[in-house]
Amino acid sequence: MKKISNPKWYQAQCLKLKKRGTLGFVPTMGCLHLGHLTLIRESVKHCDFTAVSIFVNPLQFGPKEDFTCYPRPLKDDLLLCKQAGVDLVFLPTPEEFYGSNFSIIMDETQVSQGYCGKSRPHHFAGVLTVMAKLLNGTQPDFLWMGQKDFQQCRVIQRLIENLNFPVVFKMCETVREKDGLAMSSRNRYLSPEERKTAPLIYAALKSTQALYRKEKNLEKLSRHLHMCLNSIPGFKIDYAKLVDRDTLQEGKTKNLVILVAGFFGKTRLIDNLLF
Amino acid sequence: MKKISNPKWYQAQCLKLKKRGTLGFVPTMGCLHLGHLTLIRESVKHCDFTAVSIFVNPLQFGPKEDFTCYPRPLKDDLLLCKQAGVDLVFLPTPEEFYGSNFSIIMDETQVSQGYCGKSRPHHFAGVLTVMAKLLNGTQPDFLWMGQKDFQQCRVIQRLIENLNFPVVFKMCETVREKDGLAMSSRNRYLSPEERKTAPLIYAALKSTQALYRKEKNLEKLSRHLHMCLNSIPGFKIDYAKLVDRDTLQEGKTKNLVILVAGFFGKTRLIDNLLF
Repeated sequence: MKKISNPKWYQAQCLKLKKRGTLGFVPTMGCLHLGHLTLIRESVKHCDFTAVSIFVNPLQFGPKEDFTCYPRPLKDDLLLCKQAGVDLVFLPTPEEFYGSNFSIIMDETQVSQGYCGKSRPHHFAGVLTVMAKLLNGTQPDFLWMGQKDFQQCRVIQRLIENLNFPVVFKMCETVREKDGLAMSSRNRYLSPEERKTAPLIYAALKSTQALYRKEKNLEKLSRHLHMCLNSIPGFKIDYAKLVDRDTLQEGKTKNLVILVAGFFGKTRLIDNLLF
Repeated sequence: MKKISNPKWYQAQCLKLKKRGTLGFVPTMGCLHLGHLTLIRESVKHCDFTAVSIFVNPLQFGPKEDFTCYPRPLKDDLLLCKQAGVDLVFLPTPEEFYGSNFSIIMDETQVSQGYCGKSRPHHFAGVLTVMAKLLNGTQPDFLWMGQKDFQQCRVIQRLIENLNFPVVFKMCETVREKDGLAMSSRNRYLSPEERKTAPLIYAALKSTQALYRKEKNLEKLSRHLHMCLNSIPGFKIDYAKLVDRDTLQEGKTKNLVILVAGFFGKTRLIDNLLF
């Protein structure tokens, strides 16, 4: 397994691998858990070669968010990548990655506009920029991302379709702890008490899904969802919406996804469920 | 020579060519003249295969500009491409090219901000978007563009460097009529009278260059340039600046480019000179 921090050198190595077979790519911010590893294993299984990026992207964090204290257990991450059969790890510094004359702006005007886009104003602009750079730097045949960041997946799909990136987008199901909590690098911020109650987020999603089988009234479903989430001790809802899974627009009763975000203290968690 | 309008089919054909050799790309809006043909010939000479796009991009025209009446002599253009040894011509409709769910925004905050960027407010955002799509759709090894659109060249270089597009940028010198007028598809809008005086734009650039050999005072040089341009009958200056050829910032006395734009009636012409 090669580890490369220089973007030009990384790009050259990726192009080399591509000449010998299919290349899969898993972009991460490190602090790898079973969710990331599932993406990596899928890529290793389906592609001849797999590249993983480990890069905590400053552009997608707000000024009051956790960029500086975001966990960076690099040694563990590299071991996990190696064990999973990764061929190439890209781990640039922000300075190497963005250079000194960075002046391109990217944004998206539809699927990025509500939900996390509203709560985190420049988040998706940062995500789009880093992904455009990573896709060009890697030139993968397949891009593997997790359903846990559902809105992000939709934003990246727009990027790929709108700008004609020659890559196949693959979304893998959210990996959960045994008690249902969606795996996230931020779960480690939770106190033991919060960790115990956090699985109730997923329980609220499942309960709303169960009600949906009997009841298609969006207002009732939304009320039920909010009631379930509001009853979680210490949890403060950021948003909780039933929306169209493709356009992320409200008002539809079919082809839905529930999108939820909220806080335990300062720890922001998100989850979603398709039905 | 293949002609393709479907973006996915074009992309597949480009990737096929790339597997067999190097691919050069010349993006155009059609109405090909010797300037375009010089780019195409350079590409044919240096690359195993050459793709040309002919696409009048609505995104880079302002609402009062000449999008609808921009000349589209497609039959002539295709013949010229064929004679020059082009392998692949991409000629999508705007609908095919942008699709129905286009929501990505691109912009640039430094080299695109003055000059044509000021006079044509959304022009470079449109140029960046079309170029990102064309580069991803074509995946060329070499991109050939003309110095005539000098600011555009700098904007595209930023796009390539900032977003890590794996392509080598090649700028070719402006091709001129015998009397010095820079070749442009818009020259055909000029009246016989205007056509006769239009070469004085280039003469003004050359005269300022001559003065520069004796005189490094930017204010005097600028005054001279404006005086020359203002003396051209029927010509109205849009801007005329001596700026740093890399950053396009004013105030430097070395490594300069003169950027000029102006109008004969409704016809907007640009030119530039490096020294």
